[in-house]
Amino acid sequence: MDMQDIIITKRDGGKLSREQIEYFVKGCAAGAIPDYQTAALLMAIYLNKMDREETVALTDAMLRSGDRLDLSGIRGVKVDKHSTGGVGDTTTLIAGPLAAACGVPVAKMSGRGLGFSGGTIDKLASIPGFRTALTEEAFRDQVNRIGIAVTGQTGVIAPADKKIYALRDVTGTVENMSLIASSIMSKKLAAGSDAILLDVKCGGGAFMKDRQAARELGELMCGVGRAAGKRTVAAVTAMDQPLGLAVGNALEVKEAIRTLKGEGPKDLTDLCVFLSGWMVCLGGAAPNYEEGERMTKAALASGQGLAKLGELIEAQGGDPRVIDDPALFPISAARRKIRAQADGFVSEVRAEAVGVAARLAGAGRETKDDEIDPGAGVELARKVGDPVRKGEVLALLWAEDEEKAEAARPVLQDAFVLTEDQPAEPPLLLEVIGE
Amino acid sequence: MDMQDIIITKRDGGKLSREQIEYFVKGCAAGAIPDYQTAALLMAIYLNKMDREETVALTDAMLRSGDRLDLSGIRGVKVDKHSTGGVGDTTTLIAGPLAAACGVPVAKMSGRGLGFSGGTIDKLASIPGFRTALTEEAFRDQVNRIGIAVTGQTGVIAPADKKIYALRDVTGTVENMSLIASSIMSKKLAAGSDAILLDVKCGGGAFMKDRQAARELGELMCGVGRAAGKRTVAAVTAMDQPLGLAVGNALEVKEAIRTLKGEGPKDLTDLCVFLSGWMVCLGGAAPNYEEGERMTKAALASGQGLAKLGELIEAQGGDPRVIDDPALFPISAARRKIRAQADGFVSEVRAEAVGVAARLAGAGRETKDDEIDPGAGVELARKVGDPVRKGEVLALLWAEDEEKAEAARPVLQDAFVLTEDQPAEPPLLLEVIGE
Repeated sequence: MDMQDIIITKRDGGKLSREQIEYFVKGCAAGAIPDYQTAALLMAIYLNKMDREETVALTDAMLRSGDRLDLSGIRGVKVDKHSTGGVGDTTTLIAGPLAAACGVPVAKMSGRGLGFSGGTIDKLASIPGFRTALTEEAFRDQVNRIGIAVTGQTGVIAPADKKIYALRDVTGTVENMSLIASSIMSKKLAAGSDAILLDVKCGGGAFMKDRQAARELGELMCGVGRAAGKRTVAAVTAMDQPLGLAVGNALEVKEAIRTLKGEGPKDLTDLCVFLSGWMVCLGGAAPNYEEGERMTKAALASGQGLAKLGELIEAQGGDPRVIDDPALFPISAARRKIRAQADGFVSEVRAEAVGVAARLAGAGRETKDDEIDPGAGVELARKVGDPVRKGEVLALLWAEDEEKAEAARPVLQDAFVLTEDQPAEPPLLLEVIGE
Repeated sequence: MDMQDIIITKRDGGKLSREQIEYFVKGCAAGAIPDYQTAALLMAIYLNKMDREETVALTDAMLRSGDRLDLSGIRGVKVDKHSTGGVGDTTTLIAGPLAAACGVPVAKMSGRGLGFSGGTIDKLASIPGFRTALTEEAFRDQVNRIGIAVTGQTGVIAPADKKIYALRDVTGTVENMSLIASSIMSKKLAAGSDAILLDVKCGGGAFMKDRQAARELGELMCGVGRAAGKRTVAAVTAMDQPLGLAVGNALEVKEAIRTLKGEGPKDLTDLCVFLSGWMVCLGGAAPNYEEGERMTKAALASGQGLAKLGELIEAQGGDPRVIDDPALFPISAARRKIRAQADGFVSEVRAEAVGVAARLAGAGRETKDDEIDPGAGVELARKVGDPVRKGEVLALLWAEDEEKAEAARPVLQDAFVLTEDQPAEPPLLLEVIGE
């Protein structure tokens, strides 16, 4: 086999065989294929596309390029949940404990985040004392004991994907369905759960800008998951304005706690109930989604979800008093208030702009070596549809220092669009694929 | 400007601006753009194509990435001739002296060849004593004095092309009209002549396998040449069987001498008369092609063409006695005879297979560091349309050593296809573009 032949096959619109895909992925992981050949193939894949069978083979080869978590020692049907990434997406810290409270084992391996705010691991790290690196044994034991554990990546997960992603990022070949799906799914499958719930974000603050593209990605990922023998469901959900009110690490954990107390923003609460409902159903603790939703609502109302988050924090060395005392969380010193410059209604809160503002304030990383300020971020005071008067506060900003606050402020101001007429409330849950 | 934007523009089917192309080419020549980004762009260009304006800009930028020969010190309209490459293509050594004998200055800068047999420079190097590296001054002086000079590449000609070509070669992006045309034309334009005659080979032994593709390439190159202010004509000529009978360096020079004596194979003679006729016309020594052809035929019949080749050899230090004594040329020791395995007519002499056999025998290079055996190669005893009886010789093979002879022999045998019925003589001169 020869890399040149593989490139030419895809260049000419042909279908790559499983063996060709394997040769490419193995060579990539081993550093045996020069970057320029990988880049040429990625562009050929971008332009001539891969079909489902090729995508399944690519995912499988990337999965097998590295380590896999063995969760067989955990009792029950383990469910993983993945979001394709949005702004203010705190759902794992809410839906995870709710599903665990309903009896579904949640064994979550999560990466550090690049982008607007940190990943789930970065958010949890804002809890004083919380340990984000568990050994595989400790991770398994904790799930068996309390039903939930969250750890950073252990071992070398899908190294071929890491290599390929780095090249896609600099060669204009990121936005291809098969490459996105295989990148996500190879890591999800390596994480070892039995069932996977995908939250495919759709809209201005997401990777997938339109509904059709989000649906296509969801369908493809479900196909890949099922080909690997995993029950997989994808929900397409809106990401035009940020989810909930908080964007930033400690800010989002505080919001998760409020939400589990029943005091969270409506959109975040609704989405988490929906996601947990599906997790409960996929984990086999409920016969269908409707029953999963009913059980989730009960766990939310009874405080069992909140208690489960408390158990998670305590089990991983975090200070459990944060549940009742938000003042124990770090909060950044440089503050700004963003005010409305006219009377009217909020017609848009552009998620991407809010995300950029949060990152500029210190909440996110641009490169993997950047340090995060756990106390930085944005809290929205108004969302789409809310009335506002000139001079009233639209959002609060916390930044690592004055300079960052000044950089973030105008970006956050520009995220808000006001109109004279009240806009309709935008839909949040768009569709469910794969069930 | 940013390379990622340039890649994305072409990826999305857009047109690159002159500034974007310049940024890319300059960055390439300076080593400032990583190979993986160049490779991704090349694949995007391959699949989404460039239009004529982009091709002109790419050629111009590559041309300006390096040195240019200044031929202004040479009197008259200098004409360059370029073949896109075939098997047994000795035309420069015949048409060049003929055109020079008709009064057109031929200032030819030629590269060393990669492929079946060497380039023009390698062929000339098989003449004992011949110097292939002239200083720019000696080169100009010689053209002014005797009307013809041939030298290897001087200076750094189109270094961006060199870099880009090396990447195309390993990323499946060679066969794109714009990339081929800009690569050829940037070097031709850097070589400084006033007019350019292109011999676009077409058929199984050429880069362009079909007539339509050859015509398209010819038209594109003529457009690029004219955009640079050069009179440019392209002839599309057949390359299904080798041109003439000889393939190999010394063998081809001997055949060139025979042809200038009026004793050459008909196809080679016809093509050289045709090419020289056009050179004479483009150089302004004749008002039209017909007159150029008439003058060429006269120079051939009178022996002035042969005398001009003798002057060229002598001026560059070669032994002029080779004109009358072919035994002065090197000839390889390991010999084979390829014989017909049945009675019939030759219906095909597959040029590519003959070329591969010649290279295996030692006549060509696979990588630029390979040494050439000047005495190795093939001489055909039969061509398409010729009758043959079982056991008669089809071709002679000269190889560097016995091992190479054994490797080349079966390839050369397979180059011949025999049939019972006599095939029609294939046409050689297919069409002329650009005049």
